[in-house]
Amino acid sequence: MVGRRAYARLHSDERREQLVARATELFATHGYEELSMSRIAREAGISKALLYHYFPSKRDYFIATLAGGAEELRRRVEPDPGLPPAEALGASVEAYLAWIDENADAYQKLFPSAAAVPEVRELVEGVRSATADRILEGIGATENPRARTAVQGWLWFMDGACLDWIAHRDLERSELHGLLLGTLAGALVAAGVTLGA
Amino acid sequence: MVGRRAYARLHSDERREQLVARATELFATHGYEELSMSRIAREAGISKALLYHYFPSKRDYFIATLAGGAEELRRRVEPDPGLPPAEALGASVEAYLAWIDENADAYQKLFPSAAAVPEVRELVEGVRSATADRILEGIGATENPRARTAVQGWLWFMDGACLDWIAHRDLERSELHGLLLGTLAGALVAAGVTLGA
Repeated sequence: MVGRRAYARLHSDERREQLVARATELFATHGYEELSMSRIAREAGISKALLYHYFPSKRDYFIATLAGGAEELRRRVEPDPGLPPAEALGASVEAYLAWIDENADAYQKLFPSAAAVPEVRELVEGVRSATADRILEGIGATENPRARTAVQGWLWFMDGACLDWIAHRDLERSELHGLLLGTLAGALVAAGVTLGA
Repeated sequence: MVGRRAYARLHSDERREQLVARATELFATHGYEELSMSRIAREAGISKALLYHYFPSKRDYFIATLAGGAEELRRRVEPDPGLPPAEALGASVEAYLAWIDENADAYQKLFPSAAAVPEVRELVEGVRSATADRILEGIGATENPRARTAVQGWLWFMDGACLDWIAHRDLERSELHGLLLGTLAGALVAAGVTLGA
């Protein structure tokens, strides 16, 4: 029975969605530390009371924003199970770079602030762990501590290299792609992992 | 003229030093977000008024703590100018790992919180930039954007790999050392940098 209540909920969900979509731009422009709930309400053209109805605090608003971004990113970099592991990884890294390219401002400004909020740190660490597990499975090295450390380190390498890329924009995306995959291969060799063909 | 004033200042500086030394343990135990100035004062056995005399806010106290740690780390990893670049780098990485080994708890707990404070982020980024410049000079690649991105990414790799190492402790320090240097070599090869002998 889709009655008035369901319609109202949908309407409310949509408003919430819009606020989350707007948040990325707001936080990216003003930075997490500087942006106040008053300002968010003003810029979104709604009352503070209504804003607080959707998000009990700035922290909750920020978490909802980052969770939305992380979920979209996770979906886009999902490896294609029909491809061999190495090709699937290459495609995932390309999808990651495309996402960063499109969201460069938000990534550059929100990623460092993200660590300020423990729940968001856990979100980022969760994405890293899941990605690491998938790569380790792909190369058949789930029980190898050196491989695990290499892959974890490499996921940090990705973020460091991407932040450097966005800050300078003096590399082609394809060059960065090659650098990332080549570094993973180098890290795995250094970890003593023998890769199949 | 070393009079009463100089003595009082020294005494005050020493007290401040002691508070900074104690802070690492306090922040590492309770976490930046949870620790209050009241608690710091209580645990340090001084009045809140005196604590505020030395540090206007928790943020200032935290910055002073991290700045102290960063300075000590910087001094210890300072490369030996008498060694060839590759050996000097190996020794610096070893000094870095030794420091992390000694300060594992603080590193593990403070490093993520550190990003919460913009001034501390700048400190970490400053250390990374200076280290990257030194490595790029050592390999004669200061003007090479791919090499710069590779080295910046690698410095992130170090932190990711070290955090993984501390969390699991299932690698020998020498294995991690080899993994780090091998990954840098792999990243530079992937960046198209030709290394000399």
